[in-house]
Amino acid sequence: MITKRLPFSRPEFDRRIAETRAAMAARGLDVLFVEDPSNMAWLTGYDGWSFYVHQGVIVFPDEDPIWWGRRQDANGAYRTVWMADDRVAFYADNYVQSTERHPMQTLAAILRDKGYGNKRVGLELDNYYFSAKAYLTLKDELPGAELVDATALVNWQRTVKSDEEVAFMRKAARISERIIDGVTERMRPGLKKNELVADIYGDALRGPDGEWGDYAAIVPLLPSGSDAAAPHLTWDGREMETGTATFFEIAGCYRRYHAPFCRTVFLGKPPQFLLDAEKALVEGLEAGLEAAKAGNRACDIANALAAPLERAGIERGARCGYPVGLSYPPDWGERTISIREEDQTVLEPGMTFHFMPGLWMKDWGMEITETILIRESGAAECLCDRPRKLIVKD
Amino acid sequence: MITKRLPFSRPEFDRRIAETRAAMAARGLDVLFVEDPSNMAWLTGYDGWSFYVHQGVIVFPDEDPIWWGRRQDANGAYRTVWMADDRVAFYADNYVQSTERHPMQTLAAILRDKGYGNKRVGLELDNYYFSAKAYLTLKDELPGAELVDATALVNWQRTVKSDEEVAFMRKAARISERIIDGVTERMRPGLKKNELVADIYGDALRGPDGEWGDYAAIVPLLPSGSDAAAPHLTWDGREMETGTATFFEIAGCYRRYHAPFCRTVFLGKPPQFLLDAEKALVEGLEAGLEAAKAGNRACDIANALAAPLERAGIERGARCGYPVGLSYPPDWGERTISIREEDQTVLEPGMTFHFMPGLWMKDWGMEITETILIRESGAAECLCDRPRKLIVKD
Repeated sequence: MITKRLPFSRPEFDRRIAETRAAMAARGLDVLFVEDPSNMAWLTGYDGWSFYVHQGVIVFPDEDPIWWGRRQDANGAYRTVWMADDRVAFYADNYVQSTERHPMQTLAAILRDKGYGNKRVGLELDNYYFSAKAYLTLKDELPGAELVDATALVNWQRTVKSDEEVAFMRKAARISERIIDGVTERMRPGLKKNELVADIYGDALRGPDGEWGDYAAIVPLLPSGSDAAAPHLTWDGREMETGTATFFEIAGCYRRYHAPFCRTVFLGKPPQFLLDAEKALVEGLEAGLEAAKAGNRACDIANALAAPLERAGIERGARCGYPVGLSYPPDWGERTISIREEDQTVLEPGMTFHFMPGLWMKDWGMEITETILIRESGAAECLCDRPRKLIVKD
Repeated sequence: MITKRLPFSRPEFDRRIAETRAAMAARGLDVLFVEDPSNMAWLTGYDGWSFYVHQGVIVFPDEDPIWWGRRQDANGAYRTVWMADDRVAFYADNYVQSTERHPMQTLAAILRDKGYGNKRVGLELDNYYFSAKAYLTLKDELPGAELVDATALVNWQRTVKSDEEVAFMRKAARISERIIDGVTERMRPGLKKNELVADIYGDALRGPDGEWGDYAAIVPLLPSGSDAAAPHLTWDGREMETGTATFFEIAGCYRRYHAPFCRTVFLGKPPQFLLDAEKALVEGLEAGLEAAKAGNRACDIANALAAPLERAGIERGARCGYPVGLSYPPDWGERTISIREEDQTVLEPGMTFHFMPGLWMKDWGMEITETILIRESGAAECLCDRPRKLIVKD
């Protein structure tokens, strides 16, 4: 007998399925196939590093979901999903990376058997891991079905977090604080980046207060000096140098829930332009936090941030935030709301965002960010509790 | 002026482009778009954790490739690709996760401008990150073009490694050895899994002999006891227990090149069925290594492995290996050859594989594996040099 260790209560999973079914009904979908691993986990609890092969969850209007994947990964599904074992379906190993067979042929067979061969089938056309070939194979196999784009349908159900989810994100935030505290303490000229990242993983995985830490959906990013102009460079073995700024983009992760948190460390005496940027950025963050309240729109945060930055002559081309919570690689964002000028989404209590106004300029960069929770009233709550400033080690 | 730190020589990149162009010509492709981050890096050097948004490399028959991606990531491209800055193209940030615009509209504009709007365009229909929506958008935007499936076209060029690549894999193998040595030393009843993973990251990132370690494309996997039946479960905070086997599936990684290496540790006195399985598995591995020689086929390895396992009554349903080298998440496999009964690919000197006959049975599991290099003659070379056995700590 396998012991399941589900991260959430059954009512919590029931709520998620009910919300997803309601969204399906609103879109006129008869059935939904979800390949995005974050959506799979949110719906069923499934947890495993198997998303490099095709797998997914089928959501029906009137019966429990089916987990579907590679035969060897069914063993992981039996251990991690809330559904009964007979809701786990699998394909043989010779479908994996075959040029003669495609796993989606077996998914189509399940949909046909269940009577959905000529119905409206929702597919995540632009979520992770559902490939063009997966779509084309289903199209061939289900000629009578109407394949409907349901990209982000489940992601949208994830925007407002339950109390159980917020509790996980608070634990992730404790890990994030611990990582940034460790970085602050350890940073010094001559320290090799890879050595520092090793310690970041140590802090991340040892977790807070005897709890364990999970892997974040993005590795630590810590470019220095001119390289900090590039937001997504990873580390190497070079040494930290006096007279340079290094930003640290990290997230503590607790049972797949993230609390991203970025700070920038300057070794030595910072030049005036960085201090000016810091001042404008912190002012913008604080204005954004005030604007981040229920009833306001996502763009209100972006506009509040923009004003002090513009006054300081800093032009940001990028959005300044996105929802966060449960995630698998390659991204800890939820890919629904974007905090930017054009996004009119109304903020609701329980929404969580990485408020992320990174400055990536021509030859320097700075990140000071917060993971925030929209409250019933008033300004957003920051899940991490650390000074909002450029960290200077002179 | 940005200093580029390319991992490979220019002739090495020239070779890769030439081979890819020859493969394009053989398939009658006029141009090729590559979104798989491993293929992007192999062709251009591009290195960054930005594959959560659409990006790629356009390979032309007669001009240098173009790196194409999100505006903020162009800064990373300027720093990591071998091409000149004017071969870096980008789209505005409000294309990111927009429901009104799709980045592929801007890629299509480049292809049209270059005169490929009515030509044969190769696309990776079943590689990572190229979504169904990306395909459908290109189809809409390039109605005169013929969109041809070029899945794994670049991956196939990667199967035989150059000396420069093998040198990186040897460094990765030193890291793999160090990780397994550390695990062997630290394993004890009562040790928490997450604590052990923290030390695994420490060994992985500190690297061998003063060199730095990179992140592997898969996180460490270390399920115990009954959970070892599931190949892809990740860690939690539970303690290691006497009387259980834990397999360790890890890979050292040096500048994105991997040398996966798995060993199983038993705490206490192993039961006879595990010792029997170990004996058959090691015999199978050794037979497989003998069969893994230039001129033989991939299936010859699989068949050599299968015989002693069958004699021991162990039925494996899965392939027993795949090519490895340069990789980004979610997989360190190259997704071309599969070492299994039906794969007739002829082995060539310089090919590298993870020979991976994991045993994932109903309620137990065992992994003893090797990363191998096919030589000019004779049996394959194992890149790691550690005893091929079940590690027992009694």
